[in-house]
Amino acid sequence: MIDSFVKDIEPSLMKWRRDFHRKPELGFTEYLTTYLIGKELLNLGFTIYIGQDALVSSERMGVPDQEILLQQQERAKAEGVEESWLEKMQGGHTGLAARFDTGKPGPHMAFRFDIDALPIKETSQGTHLPNQKGFRSHYEHVMHACGHDGHTAIGLGVAAFLSACQENLCGIFTLLFQPGEEGGRGAMAMVDKGWLDDVDYFASGHIGIRHSNVGVVSATTNSFLASTKLNVTYRGKAAHAGLEPEKGKNALLAAAAATLHLYSIPRHSGGKTRINVGKLHGGSGRNIVADEAKLEIETRGETTAINHYMVEEAMRILHASGELYGVETEIETVGNTVEADCDQEWIQWLSEVAGQSSYITEVNEAMPLNASEDVTFMINRVREHGGKATYMVFGTPIIEGHHHAAFDYDEDVMSVGVAAFAQIICKFTQQKEVTG
Amino acid sequence: MIDSFVKDIEPSLMKWRRDFHRKPELGFTEYLTTYLIGKELLNLGFTIYIGQDALVSSERMGVPDQEILLQQQERAKAEGVEESWLEKMQGGHTGLAARFDTGKPGPHMAFRFDIDALPIKETSQGTHLPNQKGFRSHYEHVMHACGHDGHTAIGLGVAAFLSACQENLCGIFTLLFQPGEEGGRGAMAMVDKGWLDDVDYFASGHIGIRHSNVGVVSATTNSFLASTKLNVTYRGKAAHAGLEPEKGKNALLAAAAATLHLYSIPRHSGGKTRINVGKLHGGSGRNIVADEAKLEIETRGETTAINHYMVEEAMRILHASGELYGVETEIETVGNTVEADCDQEWIQWLSEVAGQSSYITEVNEAMPLNASEDVTFMINRVREHGGKATYMVFGTPIIEGHHHAAFDYDEDVMSVGVAAFAQIICKFTQQKEVTG
Amino acid sequence: MIDSFVKDIEPSLMKWRRDFHRKPELGFTEYLTTYLIGKELLNLGFTIYIGQDALVSSERMGVPDQEILLQQQERAKAEGVEESWLEKMQGGHTGLAARFDTGKPGPHMAFRFDIDALPIKETSQGTHLPNQKGFRSHYEHVMHACGHDGHTAIGLGVAAFLSACQENLCGIFTLLFQPGEEGGRGAMAMVDKGWLDDVDYFASGHIGIRHSNVGVVSATTNSFLASTKLNVTYRGKAAHAGLEPEKGKNALLAAAAATLHLYSIPRHSGGKTRINVGKLHGGSGRNIVADEAKLEIETRGETTAINHYMVEEAMRILHASGELYGVETEIETVGNTVEADCDQEWIQWLSEVAGQSSYITEVNEAMPLNASEDVTFMINRVREHGGKATYMVFGTPIIEGHHHAAFDYDEDVMSVGVAAFAQIICKFTQQKEVTG
Amino acid sequence: MIDSFVKDIEPSLMKWRRDFHRKPELGFTEYLTTYLIGKELLNLGFTIYIGQDALVSSERMGVPDQEILLQQQERAKAEGVEESWLEKMQGGHTGLAARFDTGKPGPHMAFRFDIDALPIKETSQGTHLPNQKGFRSHYEHVMHACGHDGHTAIGLGVAAFLSACQENLCGIFTLLFQPGEEGGRGAMAMVDKGWLDDVDYFASGHIGIRHSNVGVVSATTNSFLASTKLNVTYRGKAAHAGLEPEKGKNALLAAAAATLHLYSIPRHSGGKTRINVGKLHGGSGRNIVADEAKLEIETRGETTAINHYMVEEAMRILHASGELYGVETEIETVGNTVEADCDQEWIQWLSEVAGQSSYITEVNEAMPLNASEDVTFMINRVREHGGKATYMVFGTPIIEGHHHAAFDYDEDVMSVGVAAFAQIICKFTQQKEVTG
Repeated sequence: MIDSFVKDIEPSLMKWRRDFHRKPELGFTEYLTTYLIGKELLNLGFTIYIGQDALVSSERMGVPDQEILLQQQERAKAEGVEESWLEKMQGGHTGLAARFDTGKPGPHMAFRFDIDALPIKETSQGTHLPNQKGFRSHYEHVMHACGHDGHTAIGLGVAAFLSACQENLCGIFTLLFQPGEEGGRGAMAMVDKGWLDDVDYFASGHIGIRHSNVGVVSATTNSFLASTKLNVTYRGKAAHAGLEPEKGKNALLAAAAATLHLYSIPRHSGGKTRINVGKLHGGSGRNIVADEAKLEIETRGETTAINHYMVEEAMRILHASGELYGVETEIETVGNTVEADCDQEWIQWLSEVAGQSSYITEVNEAMPLNASEDVTFMINRVREHGGKATYMVFGTPIIEGHHHAAFDYDEDVMSVGVAAFAQIICKFTQQKEVTG
Repeated sequence: MIDSFVKDIEPSLMKWRRDFHRKPELGFTEYLTTYLIGKELLNLGFTIYIGQDALVSSERMGVPDQEILLQQQERAKAEGVEESWLEKMQGGHTGLAARFDTGKPGPHMAFRFDIDALPIKETSQGTHLPNQKGFRSHYEHVMHACGHDGHTAIGLGVAAFLSACQENLCGIFTLLFQPGEEGGRGAMAMVDKGWLDDVDYFASGHIGIRHSNVGVVSATTNSFLASTKLNVTYRGKAAHAGLEPEKGKNALLAAAAATLHLYSIPRHSGGKTRINVGKLHGGSGRNIVADEAKLEIETRGETTAINHYMVEEAMRILHASGELYGVETEIETVGNTVEADCDQEWIQWLSEVAGQSSYITEVNEAMPLNASEDVTFMINRVREHGGKATYMVFGTPIIEGHHHAAFDYDEDVMSVGVAAFAQIICKFTQQKEVTG
Repeated sequence: MIDSFVKDIEPSLMKWRRDFHRKPELGFTEYLTTYLIGKELLNLGFTIYIGQDALVSSERMGVPDQEILLQQQERAKAEGVEESWLEKMQGGHTGLAARFDTGKPGPHMAFRFDIDALPIKETSQGTHLPNQKGFRSHYEHVMHACGHDGHTAIGLGVAAFLSACQENLCGIFTLLFQPGEEGGRGAMAMVDKGWLDDVDYFASGHIGIRHSNVGVVSATTNSFLASTKLNVTYRGKAAHAGLEPEKGKNALLAAAAATLHLYSIPRHSGGKTRINVGKLHGGSGRNIVADEAKLEIETRGETTAINHYMVEEAMRILHASGELYGVETEIETVGNTVEADCDQEWIQWLSEVAGQSSYITEVNEAMPLNASEDVTFMINRVREHGGKATYMVFGTPIIEGHHHAAFDYDEDVMSVGVAAFAQIICKFTQQKEVTG
Repeated sequence: MIDSFVKDIEPSLMKWRRDFHRKPELGFTEYLTTYLIGKELLNLGFTIYIGQDALVSSERMGVPDQEILLQQQERAKAEGVEESWLEKMQGGHTGLAARFDTGKPGPHMAFRFDIDALPIKETSQGTHLPNQKGFRSHYEHVMHACGHDGHTAIGLGVAAFLSACQENLCGIFTLLFQPGEEGGRGAMAMVDKGWLDDVDYFASGHIGIRHSNVGVVSATTNSFLASTKLNVTYRGKAAHAGLEPEKGKNALLAAAAATLHLYSIPRHSGGKTRINVGKLHGGSGRNIVADEAKLEIETRGETTAINHYMVEEAMRILHASGELYGVETEIETVGNTVEADCDQEWIQWLSEVAGQSSYITEVNEAMPLNASEDVTFMINRVREHGGKATYMVFGTPIIEGHHHAAFDYDEDVMSVGVAAFAQIICKFTQQKEVTG
């Protein structure tokens, strides 16, 4: 019965995915995306929470400048988002929580879907499916290049399943459509709103990491790297480089020094570390001593403790680099993720239900991520309160890697995702026979 | 008689200056400026030479990309520049040479006026004269912040003087309205066209360096710093900084290394040296190993030889910095100036004629520039062929320094400039009594 | 019977250890140590091979300068080493291979013991056992601070056991007393002599890593880090730093640059990496541009391939750092180790024999070393030819860590070592009942 | 008469010079040198002041460690220096002031001669005069490679002249035999003792800078560079670079960073600057994170103010470099010199007396030094109190440059030096006819 539901909804999954793909939005500017999700969920009978009802404003990280937020709200308005919605979301309070209470005693299950896009200019290659099928990004320099369009579509598919099968289910369901996953910026703000404090089963997932066959599902994920994202600004003093070089305070030299010295943070015997200075923009003109330079940096560690070590080292180096050249140092933390462990029971649970769906052809135990995901804040919160949490990976061939301008995947993976969530739902909350 | 001519032309000087100030154009995009100058000179009876008739295309340095040139040509067209002019100037062949032959035997005199503006956003302060009088730059991020608007107006004033007094003068006059002085990019291209090869007297000048009284004129300038401008691009290989950092080739680390090491070029016992990395832009995103970084650099030396030493050291360091991180290094020389000496006779000559003009209240011997000017190529060419050359400085109070967003000067200095050039003209080419 | 042999030999073990401790010798200067070992082995009936009969001269790494070798030979002569021995060993051909053929068919077993000391000044603290018992190093700045004095004593104990029990044993035994283990300099030279090409069972070991109880033995070791040791010399040109700084070629700046940039070699997704610049000596005087600077560097990698990556990166950076400052770069590889795996059967074998010795109280499976040992060349050679190889660790409390000026261990660990080797010997070559 | 005195004393000059050359002593260890000078001066009738009677202990800079001072005192004792002298000089209170009061009213004249040697190993080349004539340095690694042996000999020659001609002279004479000129360490300690507070005429000098003809004398010197000498120690924490690199605090990285960043102190528009890191010694072993590194640094500036700028920049960079790597920074100022101007009257005075001596063949106006000399403290003190001061240069061919292992000069230059001082003495204090 689940399989036939999935079959029926496939045209909607594709439509949703392509709609989101056409209008990608960066973290905390997902005004249109949130609106479209919300309208669907209302139709499906969910109670929805947006704006500061969905997340704790002060816990968001790396929120864009007011100027950008205003531009983006204007854009969203032009795209048809209603004024009343924009009012609630204004200031970058995007994303949405949705509740569905069956009214019958049962467990509390929660699922999380991330909805933001990336600052990448989508390829114009003719071979790229969005170009062939007419759903290339309408927004220059913004692209769903990490599959969150598919995640969001899966989330709507899961919502539709809950709505369709509500008679047979018990318990309470919470769906979190999270903004700002890229850079680790949005999860904590939802966690701190308390959505997960009494959750019994929590699941989230990602499409297309390593497994290239549609149908393969990793029941759990490990090797999440803890990570911190820092923006640094050095402010010095301009001077004419020919006439009075000694009058300047060289912010660019401070930034260059910081860049070099950050990479010399010692390796750690306790596990993996990473450091990257991804961007450096400094100086205003060739013959002027640079009075400003900006850096975008990230640290990672195999554990939260090791990442903490990296951040502490980085902070000291960043300040000392400013001091080297007598310039001011301003450091802003704009993102953060932690380590987490999935509950191993999910391997057994997924394996059990897999047999009941033709969509799931193989269940793997654990996928080592070796990357960072702020879903770890959610997993940890659930587990701290005794719930069971996992992060699944849904296999699919991908055209070029994640975050690439030509990233794409097999849209059939969305069916597998919906099927997996639906099977889990039924396993824990089904009252009559619905599987098969 | 010169003084009364100057008095009469003052309204025109102010109008010209403000017109140029409203429409500032960067080096090799002075399409409108060249057009406006040309139209005036034609009216005044000059023979003019534009496009590749004015300069040697291949000797220009730091010409903008084709894309920018096309945009700027479109802009100029929209501002009313005639198609036939644009055709000749297309591809960044701006600037103009003008000839006036009296038909009577006499010396060949040449004057140079630079016409380009700077990539600076003009201040919006109410106290700034261009804001009060309505001649603020129409072009965001471009501004006449070094007085070349005044230089150009002086040049037109001198042309008007030649035209008005032609009956009393003998010899040949060449006026060079040079593009791309900023960064030392345009002079050599005019020099190599041969305009100065048989010149007997050459003069150019600048307004507002150090002397703050209108009426003070430095007869000569010294301490020109030789200078070279370099653009550097490092090209490496992107990689995910968390997943596979070892796969990247980090162009940003190469650029940071180059920045630091360039400043460690040894001081030179032979005289002043300067090095500046004015701009560094590198990297595409926080979690990506940077695959590209660009630097804007300048070297200077008290002599051409010392600057050559700086360039050689810089070249080696730039290449080795690329090699450090296994990235490609591309270096483009986008500007160049040399040292030069003015002929000392000009001190005597200026002192003699100063007495005949109420505009010139004081003549100083030499102004140490301690900066770079590509007029030095012109001075050297004239002197190599036995001519006498100078570069004058015309005093004026200035509001904030040169290249500042609120740079401004006393417009009366333009009268002093015209008077000085006119007096010199009369000294060497006057046939009847015209002074006083 | 093994236990009683061990009991009897304990006074000799202690005497040997203390004799070696008094006269520690650095890699390739173990003239006296080799001589003392050789004399004992001859008495025990071994056939010995010294000088170029023991190792391939050209495969040694980091051999000291001729001047130092001559000094050390003089010292050894003064200590009583016979001329004929010195002649064979001259030029740093220290170390020794010994053969014992039972004449009866059986397996070929080989054991390796390392014999060199470290350039450390032994503590003068009264609490330090060598000070209390009068066996502190006689050689200022040289010390057995890594337990190789104990390893050598164990080796002689094993030789004595072979000699004593020869009637009951079959097969062939090879003992390698290896010079220059510190820095990974001597193993390859013995391996390439062919000593291990037909060995069936190979074992070596170390005392005192992590396990603090005497009696605990790790049957195998893993996590050997592959490592390479580099000495770098930059040669520039001196100049008076005040009078003519530009005439210098600054070797110290090159060395400082290399130091910084080496640490920025990217972390590797495939496993652990390490880089260390342990020493930098540069420059001759405060007011002189430094014309020479020397670096001592090591790289490590979790696998031989990852270490190779580190070395390749380091080589490029080292050369480019010289190029940065226009100085000559000379790089010498003075040590090398590779990764290796022990055969897992040893866990079972050791566990079996442990029960037969009261000296061995506990057998652990594998000790993760996380350090480098050139015994890995030996392990790999044995395994390539189908033999079984292991590297054991013998627990002991230690006073301060390895390579510390106050390093010391419980001398009882030597009995455990001899017992373990003897048990293994009996397991594979015993013909009559000798155990218990 | 002066010339004949000089002629007669030439054998003594040579003997003195060679005696000092054989026994060169570094700054503040000139025990033997001071003793030999003192004994001569006592014979000549001078009142001498040694130990803390000659200089202010606390104003000395860069005094060697107590251990070295004790060794050197032992050495001096072995060379025959009397106990009573050593007692007064102990602790590095070397150097000597001498007074000669004619008892007749007249000016106070003071002369300074520097007496220290350099830490250079003298060449063993056969062509080197000290090798040919048997006066090569007896002290390995110490050499008179800057001519102070000659300066001291000249000083004794001048003393002999004063003694010989005392009947004809009036006024008071002070001779300062200064320790620790190299590195700018000793002058201030003599100045602060007050020797120069009421001096009317002060002269000092150097042999062999630029002028290669014996007989040429520069009457004055200019372009003294102000300079400061710094010793820096970084103290971190050692750790095994393979096992626990994160536990270390890397003093060598701090020192390498400091080295690089010091060279990036901006050039100064006000005049020459210099920076040099002449020595860096750091780290204890290849596989240990370095816990200590030491730097020897000097700054220079065309003026005292510019040098002050360099020192302030250097101090900030040195501390920040320690902070970069979390290590302790210790900075000691071990030397200092300032700018100074000679009185121009000396050009006239020297020119006048030159005619009266066949030894002085040419008088030049001023020699630009472009180096540092702590005689500037003396010049400034004399001039502050209204006296007239100069620093002369005496021409001579030199074999290799100053501070070179094969430095040597024409010993005839000493005669010129004595003649010049004597002529000046007579010019201002002669009562009867003594010249010619």
